[in-house]
Amino acid sequence: MTVTSPKGFTAAGLHCGIKPSGAPDLALVATADGRAVPAAGVFTQNLACAGPVRVSRQHLAATNGRAAAVVLNSGNANCATGTDVDVASRMCELTSEELGCASNEVLVCSTGLIGIPLDLAPLERGIPALVATRTDDGGPSAARAIMTTDTVSKHAVAEGDGWTIGGIAKGAAMLAPNMATMLAVLTTDASVEPDVLQQTLRWAVAGTFNRVVVDGCTSTNDTVLLFANGVAGRPEPVAFERKLHDVCRSLALQMVQDAEGHTKVVSIRVEGATTSEDAERAARKLATSLLVKSSFYGSDPYWGRVLSDLGTAGVAMDVDSVTIAYGDVVVSKGLAPTGADASDVAAASTFALTCNLGAGNASYEVWTNDLSHAYIDENMTTS
Amino acid sequence: MTVTSPKGFTAAGLHCGIKPSGAPDLALVATADGRAVPAAGVFTQNLACAGPVRVSRQHLAATNGRAAAVVLNSGNANCATGTDVDVASRMCELTSEELGCASNEVLVCSTGLIGIPLDLAPLERGIPALVATRTDDGGPSAARAIMTTDTVSKHAVAEGDGWTIGGIAKGAAMLAPNMATMLAVLTTDASVEPDVLQQTLRWAVAGTFNRVVVDGCTSTNDTVLLFANGVAGRPEPVAFERKLHDVCRSLALQMVQDAEGHTKVVSIRVEGATTSEDAERAARKLATSLLVKSSFYGSDPYWGRVLSDLGTAGVAMDVDSVTIAYGDVVVSKGLAPTGADASDVAAASTFALTCNLGAGNASYEVWTNDLSHAYIDENMTTS
Repeated sequence: MTVTSPKGFTAAGLHCGIKPSGAPDLALVATADGRAVPAAGVFTQNLACAGPVRVSRQHLAATNGRAAAVVLNSGNANCATGTDVDVASRMCELTSEELGCASNEVLVCSTGLIGIPLDLAPLERGIPALVATRTDDGGPSAARAIMTTDTVSKHAVAEGDGWTIGGIAKGAAMLAPNMATMLAVLTTDASVEPDVLQQTLRWAVAGTFNRVVVDGCTSTNDTVLLFANGVAGRPEPVAFERKLHDVCRSLALQMVQDAEGHTKVVSIRVEGATTSEDAERAARKLATSLLVKSSFYGSDPYWGRVLSDLGTAGVAMDVDSVTIAYGDVVVSKGLAPTGADASDVAAASTFALTCNLGAGNASYEVWTNDLSHAYIDENMTTS
Repeated sequence: MTVTSPKGFTAAGLHCGIKPSGAPDLALVATADGRAVPAAGVFTQNLACAGPVRVSRQHLAATNGRAAAVVLNSGNANCATGTDVDVASRMCELTSEELGCASNEVLVCSTGLIGIPLDLAPLERGIPALVATRTDDGGPSAARAIMTTDTVSKHAVAEGDGWTIGGIAKGAAMLAPNMATMLAVLTTDASVEPDVLQQTLRWAVAGTFNRVVVDGCTSTNDTVLLFANGVAGRPEPVAFERKLHDVCRSLALQMVQDAEGHTKVVSIRVEGATTSEDAERAARKLATSLLVKSSFYGSDPYWGRVLSDLGTAGVAMDVDSVTIAYGDVVVSKGLAPTGADASDVAAASTFALTCNLGAGNASYEVWTNDLSHAYIDENMTTS
């Protein structure tokens, strides 16, 4: 049920001294024998990306997609400090010395505040202890140690024909005082070559983690990693894709459901677009609209705002046939109300908003939250 | 000091019965003699635009840019009702019958909730009374009658060499329970041909009203109109452009300062971009970022969020030389803090945030607000 469910992986988590609260802040996921295996990574597209993202990208490139472990810390993003690349490299070195692998066979992730130097001292002490305490049931400890304002740790697993995919994650957005970082570490005992692993991971992320839109902000540290040690043999390719998608989807939905400050989870689906790019643009426009998100918070099915935001999304739309539905209740068609009442739907804690642009056959879906007082409270200061 | 300051214009405002509160909800601005004069309009780009926008566009096209009056109502957007075009046309007809001009020489604006049919009965009664009570000092009455949740009415005037430009407006965004409609009516006694008037108005709006970003939502009803009756003779063209810009800028800033629910007014300037499109995209990204706007509310100069949003704005940026400043305090350079403390700047009710992308020489400025509890309260329901 977690990142250590596949055979041949170990994990650990502990408090090394980054978080003043004393909560766990350092985690490891590693192959049991400390040897490098095929590994893939999908990283933030943010130009101002953090040191750990730069170092992990560099390591995967240098090894042609092989890694033995990832070391992760919470409580500090190790980003935009001037020393972040050096600190991230040192974290990999420390880990590799204990595991007995090459330094560039270790990947690294951080999550927390930007712009505050990450002190190496607790890491110098903590990483040897971390590696020493890793076990084949350490997934839950690792998952707890990457939490920031997540209220629950996040795990998922899917079983294939003799092989398993497992994973842990920390939540996206509405995470304060931290940035909206999402991290996920996935493992499998299936045997998959690095290039196929990378392609499959990229495809799975696009359909799952990238559908989560809480506030439209993309963190400097977002990272999804996948290790494949191959001990359970070769999977049927389509089955592997599907199971990987399932694990990523489960973790992504756990993030939306645990987003800080929300009272609603809303899936927004735009259909009838001329292109999937148009459908995505319109769905993301709605999911980041302050007016639409405020109306979710108020349980008010005010379709006028939805229509107005569709009209300015820069996408092709047939204004005479566009429809808007809360759940199954179609509240407007063209530029006029149907008279149907969607109050009950909008009052639920989870509902679907479906918009058909009437212009084509493409569609796109995102998962989002409402905009609440608590969101602002979480994000108005860093202290 | 208002829309009736230029010679040869009249205005009026009264309660006709649209707003249950009994507040003024119907307004008129018209030439004193009821004859059509050169007129220009800039309208929302929203595809789901309201009936009054369609009708006004059509009338200006049919008359080649001439109009005698504009009739405006508040309390109902007359949008997406199925009957909105007919009702807007009827409002023009009723006004033209009283003024003695052609129906397509009357323009029309509405502001309020979307999707609720606008009843004609109060308009049938109210418009004759409105036209009958118009006076050459009626600007303030008209300005009050277009208010929604504005707390003050908005006026501006600029004097040229023997000619005058005056205007009234109602505020942009954070207006609840209404949509974020902005309306402005401008008049001048200068003599300007319709095509020049249209070009000049479009230029002035781009540099002023279009710089106001409160929540990134573009209303279905946004309209700016300008009438030029020519009684004061021909202006020097550059002087006219400048004075028109001044009047529009004053009204736009009054809107930001009166936006509902805000505690801060922030000017965001992006410099050092490779193109002005990049500068605009980055400035608007920051001005609509929930995380950045929440930090404004918290008086927290958390530049890490600003940097992160710049990094995902899709614009060219030199990550090694990008700078961020609150007021004159440069808080970061490249991907590292300078150590300078901008807490005092961020605590002020008005301040400037300046980001230099280090990639070129183009710049763009927008004016925005913070994201507060009150904004959500205003917008969470329509009732």
